[in-house]
Amino acid sequence: MALLHLSTWPEVADYLTESRGLIVPIGSTEQHGPIGLIGTDAICAEVIAKGVGDATGALVAPTINVGMALHHTAFPGTISLRPSTLLLVLRDYLVSLARSGFQRFFFINGHGGNIATVKAAFAETYAALTELQIPGADQVRCELANWFMCPSVTQLARELYGDREGSHATPSEVAVTQFVYPEAIKQGVLSAEVNRDHAIYGAVDFRCRYPDGRMGSDPSLATPEHGQQFYQRAVNDLSQRYRQFLSAE
Amino acid sequence: MALLHLSTWPEVADYLTESRGLIVPIGSTEQHGPIGLIGTDAICAEVIAKGVGDATGALVAPTINVGMALHHTAFPGTISLRPSTLLLVLRDYLVSLARSGFQRFFFINGHGGNIATVKAAFAETYAALTELQIPGADQVRCELANWFMCPSVTQLARELYGDREGSHATPSEVAVTQFVYPEAIKQGVLSAEVNRDHAIYGAVDFRCRYPDGRMGSDPSLATPEHGQQFYQRAVNDLSQRYRQFLSAE
Amino acid sequence: MALLHLSTWPEVADYLTESRGLIVPIGSTEQHGPIGLIGTDAICAEVIAKGVGDATGALVAPTINVGMALHHTAFPGTISLRPSTLLLVLRDYLVSLARSGFQRFFFINGHGGNIATVKAAFAETYAALTELQIPGADQVRCELANWFMCPSVTQLARELYGDREGSHATPSEVAVTQFVYPEAIKQGVLSAEVNRDHAIYGAVDFRCRYPDGRMGSDPSLATPEHGQQFYQRAVNDLSQRYRQFLSAE
Amino acid sequence: MALLHLSTWPEVADYLTESRGLIVPIGSTEQHGPIGLIGTDAICAEVIAKGVGDATGALVAPTINVGMALHHTAFPGTISLRPSTLLLVLRDYLVSLARSGFQRFFFINGHGGNIATVKAAFAETYAALTELQIPGADQVRCELANWFMCPSVTQLARELYGDREGSHATPSEVAVTQFVYPEAIKQGVLSAEVNRDHAIYGAVDFRCRYPDGRMGSDPSLATPEHGQQFYQRAVNDLSQRYRQFLSAE
Amino acid sequence: MALLHLSTWPEVADYLTESRGLIVPIGSTEQHGPIGLIGTDAICAEVIAKGVGDATGALVAPTINVGMALHHTAFPGTISLRPSTLLLVLRDYLVSLARSGFQRFFFINGHGGNIATVKAAFAETYAALTELQIPGADQVRCELANWFMCPSVTQLARELYGDREGSHATPSEVAVTQFVYPEAIKQGVLSAEVNRDHAIYGAVDFRCRYPDGRMGSDPSLATPEHGQQFYQRAVNDLSQRYRQFLSAE
Amino acid sequence: MALLHLSTWPEVADYLTESRGLIVPIGSTEQHGPIGLIGTDAICAEVIAKGVGDATGALVAPTINVGMALHHTAFPGTISLRPSTLLLVLRDYLVSLARSGFQRFFFINGHGGNIATVKAAFAETYAALTELQIPGADQVRCELANWFMCPSVTQLARELYGDREGSHATPSEVAVTQFVYPEAIKQGVLSAEVNRDHAIYGAVDFRCRYPDGRMGSDPSLATPEHGQQFYQRAVNDLSQRYRQFLSAE
Repeated sequence: MALLHLSTWPEVADYLTESRGLIVPIGSTEQHGPIGLIGTDAICAEVIAKGVGDATGALVAPTINVGMALHHTAFPGTISLRPSTLLLVLRDYLVSLARSGFQRFFFINGHGGNIATVKAAFAETYAALTELQIPGADQVRCELANWFMCPSVTQLARELYGDREGSHATPSEVAVTQFVYPEAIKQGVLSAEVNRDHAIYGAVDFRCRYPDGRMGSDPSLATPEHGQQFYQRAVNDLSQRYRQFLSAE
Repeated sequence: MALLHLSTWPEVADYLTESRGLIVPIGSTEQHGPIGLIGTDAICAEVIAKGVGDATGALVAPTINVGMALHHTAFPGTISLRPSTLLLVLRDYLVSLARSGFQRFFFINGHGGNIATVKAAFAETYAALTELQIPGADQVRCELANWFMCPSVTQLARELYGDREGSHATPSEVAVTQFVYPEAIKQGVLSAEVNRDHAIYGAVDFRCRYPDGRMGSDPSLATPEHGQQFYQRAVNDLSQRYRQFLSAE
Repeated sequence: MALLHLSTWPEVADYLTESRGLIVPIGSTEQHGPIGLIGTDAICAEVIAKGVGDATGALVAPTINVGMALHHTAFPGTISLRPSTLLLVLRDYLVSLARSGFQRFFFINGHGGNIATVKAAFAETYAALTELQIPGADQVRCELANWFMCPSVTQLARELYGDREGSHATPSEVAVTQFVYPEAIKQGVLSAEVNRDHAIYGAVDFRCRYPDGRMGSDPSLATPEHGQQFYQRAVNDLSQRYRQFLSAE
Repeated sequence: MALLHLSTWPEVADYLTESRGLIVPIGSTEQHGPIGLIGTDAICAEVIAKGVGDATGALVAPTINVGMALHHTAFPGTISLRPSTLLLVLRDYLVSLARSGFQRFFFINGHGGNIATVKAAFAETYAALTELQIPGADQVRCELANWFMCPSVTQLARELYGDREGSHATPSEVAVTQFVYPEAIKQGVLSAEVNRDHAIYGAVDFRCRYPDGRMGSDPSLATPEHGQQFYQRAVNDLSQRYRQFLSAE
Repeated sequence: MALLHLSTWPEVADYLTESRGLIVPIGSTEQHGPIGLIGTDAICAEVIAKGVGDATGALVAPTINVGMALHHTAFPGTISLRPSTLLLVLRDYLVSLARSGFQRFFFINGHGGNIATVKAAFAETYAALTELQIPGADQVRCELANWFMCPSVTQLARELYGDREGSHATPSEVAVTQFVYPEAIKQGVLSAEVNRDHAIYGAVDFRCRYPDGRMGSDPSLATPEHGQQFYQRAVNDLSQRYRQFLSAE
Repeated sequence: MALLHLSTWPEVADYLTESRGLIVPIGSTEQHGPIGLIGTDAICAEVIAKGVGDATGALVAPTINVGMALHHTAFPGTISLRPSTLLLVLRDYLVSLARSGFQRFFFINGHGGNIATVKAAFAETYAALTELQIPGADQVRCELANWFMCPSVTQLARELYGDREGSHATPSEVAVTQFVYPEAIKQGVLSAEVNRDHAIYGAVDFRCRYPDGRMGSDPSLATPEHGQQFYQRAVNDLSQRYRQFLSAE
């Protein structure tokens, strides 16, 4: 593995003679309930991306640590790009990197709220690269891999937490952050009752609907040991998927 | 049912005293293989939206007939908005209509390629409505309903076509257009071989990968009678879903 | 005639070997007074475009049914794009279609409020096509044809309605919608008094100035038979104009 | 008269206690044929705006000297904003000035190519002012006055030049610049033949169609004395129109 | 010297065979305290640009007389572009002019508030010119020269005014306007006390902080004779700098 | 100190009852010569920001690790936002955070190329916050602190490296990265000759002018010990400056 930000440009030039693949972690900076870290999604995406980089020898880009979290902005500490801004950010990243010669972009994503915008950005960018007549534009491919949707991950979450996994500020993602930052494990008393709804509309509605920020989850179940298991499973699944992505026609 | 474009503004004002719901059909104008109509996605969304309007008494907006189809633009006749443009279009629609007093927007969608951008637009718009301080902004909710993903629809497609349903220019959607426009049923000899891949990247790549525009489908299996069945099932499913949407907390 | 949305891409490819012309109907979705349909401008543009397509053999694109109607947004049911959005929409349409090989775009317009933005979009797009280096970019020409300004149309309106034609929610346009949708003819008592002003500023000012939405018009004079006459005259005039447009140097 | 740029802010504050009107000259920086000045449109708009300011006591803003001239950009020296940019410029001007308390904006325009974009910008801005909740937003009104279309001006041009007036680089506008800058009167032999077409598409097409930049005009007929006459007539017409604009309901 | 707006396009074509340089004055339209002109920054930039043009034979473009002055917009008469708009304006200017063949753009700036946006625009434009594949794109260079920061100017200001020069509505810039427009010298009693702070945040904060618009300055010290000295020094310094800019590798 | 991403939202809510300040590190991902890390600017900004957070008790936001580096994009591995994109990113950050109640934003910057755009973004955002009527909008203040321009830092660089400090890929910044990541110290033979120019234009020109990416620097002089000294000095200077910023009127 190598991290782009710990490499020099001649090292990147060398890498490109052997591979055109790049792993891009993308997360979010948003409330994760009473005991989840605001950086949860970025932390998970980053550590798993590094793991996949180690396993596959792929270069790993710096983490996009702020994403699309407008619905969380009624909780303090959340930072969100608008979808229209995130779309431009991803376009600019991909244009820069495609000029360098990268052609296979594997985004490891830690936040469900990013999915729509990231996919829209891929479509916008394929067309932009062609319009800009960047050499190899027609060869560029992007893939979005959501670590929390890996089959081995969702299976483990089901086994460990059942329906207390929920869909935001989940014990599985909190566990991964505990594995990475054991010094930042938070304590707190969680109300037993939690809204198990899945609906997401505007920010004000969200805070009314989910007053402490959790969506159906019980993050107090998380442990660092669980986190390590989730990490390992996600790295295994996504490493295999990255290799397939690179070798696909 | 009523169609917005066949109503007067006083009729709309009356409607709003009883309902704050609106159905918005959205399709695409893009190649649909050798015998599928370029308007397939818009035609299907529109007819099903009208059916749901009939069944539920909901007002139906004019069809958004051009969507996000950049990957099809290497085939003549395709018209596409860029995701960034479609996002603005949907924002403008929703701002106009929320000013009128509409608060429940039920999009009936005929095109998979629209999904990401439409969802991104919902998020962008919730925040915009709040920023603009439109009365009732925090009450606005949007839902995206893809008719081709209704359980009863996919089940029928599986029964009728098995794996020859494919994922673009499918016999199920072609059947619906044949039901609506029997005078526009096209004949054509289709190659037996067809790429069953699902990958979608840029437009040039798409045409190389799927030379006649089909993705794994055999639209020659379509009949108007099938179309009527798909239509009926989609209308039933989505009418129920619309009612739930209106009555949900 | 053929409609783009009822054609297949191979049919479009064939058409392009014989003609590079396309007719694009553009309307609006906006209040048209107490008895005029919200879809009036789109309905008129669409039916006349189809008539011109029949007369000339030209391909007709799907109708752009929402345009620039910001000044009508204080009346419920109006949907408007901002000029900046409509400009992008038209740019995206023209870029898609110019890539296909179309080079003569004949917009049949049903709404005065679109004129400025459509013309601005033409200028923006000519430059964009050159910047994008689309083959044949320098050959692309767009023309805006407002059916309600055809000499034969305005003459008939004068004869039938005199100064009760007005300038918005006019009997002539209402008549055309009655010809197309006789089942949607609305009844209503109109105040004899109506503001004959022409001024248009913001939406709030507009509704104060024109309380029921009419600008100097008496749409109760409309009949379906009048509508047919207007339709025929517009089709004749615009068919001739389209042919000249195609054959011009 | 007073010029905004030669006033202090307390003087503007005083002016606003008596009038809410402002005159904004807008021109273009574009080729005007072999002997016309590149600044012709800005020079004409500015001098006439100052004349109207003198006659009416209105404050005159700095001249917008670069406008929408994309079709002239194949001739060296032309500077053009894209319509989408000019739209933003006008929005920003009007937002700034409406915050100051100005509510009647009288644009004196010297360039036909600006008309569409300026009108689109008015519509965009009315809505923006309301969205921004600027005090008095609903009272803001903009008017576009094209000096070259004043009845007294076109009549004089017909009398003096007949069909040699043409439609770009006209003797009438060149005459006004000669009146303002007698030291910058250019000599040059003009081809007798000139394309009398009116068509305007892209920049490359424009230069092919109008090789020396003139559209049907013979600017060699211009004299400074004519210029003074045009100036006087335009000032008279537009002063009256400005007063009506201010006093209109 | 020549002014672009007083030239014809063939004259520009001739100029380009000998030089690829252009001087672009840029100012602002903003409050300048109780006795400073709203147009101060544009007036200074323009007159000095013309002086440099005279001294060096360089062509001078029309003055960009409205810049980035958002922080002054709580004072009446100020007009400001947003940075995002000014960035587009400069991009459009440079794209137009680079197409003409200009490659050395020397901006003479009269307003500190423009600096950041102008520099950002240079960066944005270099990339845009390459993306647009404009011939010679990689040869384009822009330089920003702030006349008020010329060493000979700041030295004179120190000698004449000491710490009463301040940083906005300064006696030095007011002096230059008095030299240019002696007929527009304003009188007024200035409070002896003035905030010598340098902080600039939002517009409301600015007016609270600097109630009469001055930042630490005493413009009553200005005289037309001082203005002529500043003018001469700026012209000398910038003429030399322009020549170096043109001849640099 | 606390890091925003390692905090929960209730912790942020608590923090806001005591302080409205936030430290935002911003860097870049760009070539730094033959032995400098691509992440140099982000690494330096981040570590110093954490140090300042420790010293002052301020909360530290996640690092903006990609900035404005268009001029470096001809070297592989560089990622850049366009200025127009970075401007939107910063606006979105600040809008989100101002909604939370933060009002003092202290940006610690590691990259000269960010300065112009960041300052432009501050101006754009102050106006946007007012337009959006965010509570406390008029109290928001942003400050840009470039660690490499701290007096104590530049003095040490001069002492240690003299004119071999240069202006890009400098030994001082490389030293800080060596202090943070001793495991990522790169070796390499540097040409003795290096261009001592300061000019920055487009990306292609940059690579021609500075073939190995250095601007006048000799990063081989860097040591981790130097890095620690630079770190300490920057933290001291900026901690004091942050405290002043918080306490200023």
